[in-house]
Amino acid sequence: MSGPAVAVTGPVVPDQAPAAGGRDARLAIRAGRHRTHTSGLAPGHVQGNVVILPQALAAEFLLFCQRNPKPCPVLAVSEPGAPSLPSLGADLDIRTDVPRYRVWRDGVLVDEPVDLGRWWRDDLVTFVLGCSFSFEHALIAAGLPLRHVALGLNVAMYRTTVPTVAAGRFHGPLVVSMRPMKPADAIRAVLVTAQLPAVHGAPVHIGKPELLGIADLARPDFGDPVEVRDDELPVFWACGVTPQAVVMAARPEFCITHAPGHMLVTDLLERDLAAR
Amino acid sequence: MSGPAVAVTGPVVPDQAPAAGGRDARLAIRAGRHRTHTSGLAPGHVQGNVVILPQALAAEFLLFCQRNPKPCPVLAVSEPGAPSLPSLGADLDIRTDVPRYRVWRDGVLVDEPVDLGRWWRDDLVTFVLGCSFSFEHALIAAGLPLRHVALGLNVAMYRTTVPTVAAGRFHGPLVVSMRPMKPADAIRAVLVTAQLPAVHGAPVHIGKPELLGIADLARPDFGDPVEVRDDELPVFWACGVTPQAVVMAARPEFCITHAPGHMLVTDLLERDLAAR
Repeated sequence: MSGPAVAVTGPVVPDQAPAAGGRDARLAIRAGRHRTHTSGLAPGHVQGNVVILPQALAAEFLLFCQRNPKPCPVLAVSEPGAPSLPSLGADLDIRTDVPRYRVWRDGVLVDEPVDLGRWWRDDLVTFVLGCSFSFEHALIAAGLPLRHVALGLNVAMYRTTVPTVAAGRFHGPLVVSMRPMKPADAIRAVLVTAQLPAVHGAPVHIGKPELLGIADLARPDFGDPVEVRDDELPVFWACGVTPQAVVMAARPEFCITHAPGHMLVTDLLERDLAAR
Repeated sequence: MSGPAVAVTGPVVPDQAPAAGGRDARLAIRAGRHRTHTSGLAPGHVQGNVVILPQALAAEFLLFCQRNPKPCPVLAVSEPGAPSLPSLGADLDIRTDVPRYRVWRDGVLVDEPVDLGRWWRDDLVTFVLGCSFSFEHALIAAGLPLRHVALGLNVAMYRTTVPTVAAGRFHGPLVVSMRPMKPADAIRAVLVTAQLPAVHGAPVHIGKPELLGIADLARPDFGDPVEVRDDELPVFWACGVTPQAVVMAARPEFCITHAPGHMLVTDLLERDLAAR
């Protein structure tokens, strides 16, 4: 893979005219009127994880995503140095449209700015990856209750002993999120989320956490513990924390991500995600 | 529901010209050249469970099937008194085309003939229901191993404490079949079989047999016990034994079924079953 391959944003085009909700949210963020997390913002619009890398690392990271599509579903990749992502929103400017960023040097957090004015470089490539907000909305719409949502908790996430497929300097374990479900609901959840490969797709595992190297469900590595009752199975999905952990472990000389929970709101509609 | 509604065979029409394999198998059975079970006969062709009832009971049984589509997926229903099922095979004659039948009076087995010459009546309605052979072929084709098939055993089946939805005198517990699978294979099996509602569709349960009222997986009510290993989950599908058990429990004054394993071979192709 060479540089230009990374610059292709792919065939991800909204099926509809850009919806006002996503753009309104970005304009509010850009103007400093929205500074908190984006959960519940612009309902029905796809939100994304953001990873921004120098072009020298971008081809390798894109290859890592290609090899690990469940934890790393790529929604869009920018042209090098271009702050726009036209397939996600005509006016989108990645330098201003995320409520809070994290800037990393050699894997060390150096800043948490609300815009990238002083950090932008002409060699940066932006990756936007699908996030689980959208598939959780699809599960709830299908009548499948999610305990962590009902309790206002963060989803429980675990580092597994399952390795991702390495690409150059990017490698590390798969991180999964876990949602407890009654068995019949777990079956329906497989069917609902399999239709949504752009936001992690079908579960990667059901029922036997020890096979993933998870010793204690009550002690997640990230997020909040959530009870799994006797009549429930733990259902595990590949998690967008995976690429973030892999990028941090590679200690790139420079990297920008969104701050946790502070996602990029796009014009894509969740209802258009099926089988994308 | 009134009598005439039962006489409709529905829109199940082969997508292709009738395939020789299914007809060849029926001709061999009709001529007495094939007298054993039909497993492996006419590969790629859909086989069906057979229930033949007097017209006076047929409307109620069709309603039972409508209310319980997972255990009772109806492939075709004959006209009253007609031995033909043109949607399953142009030449099909239900009186001669099953290798062995069972004839029941008031719920008691009275004969196991190889044809229905002396038992046929002008008020009989034939129901053909999808069977698990087809979804097992789809699972194997998808690379998902089935232990009972590899070991040459019958699948393990269990009477559950889950009630079917009653219709008139037809009621009783759901019977399920169980196949042990590694968790990732169980997820793929959900996706493969959900495409095949005409042959029981997606599993009804995964992982917690006690929630179905199954006390001991090692002691199935029908079929052979099959080991479930520590790294596997038991995956449960609705089973075609359900309608047979329900019909027997209703003790109809007269009823004919296929003998176990001696199914009706149709012209329908398994590859045409997806989402039928």
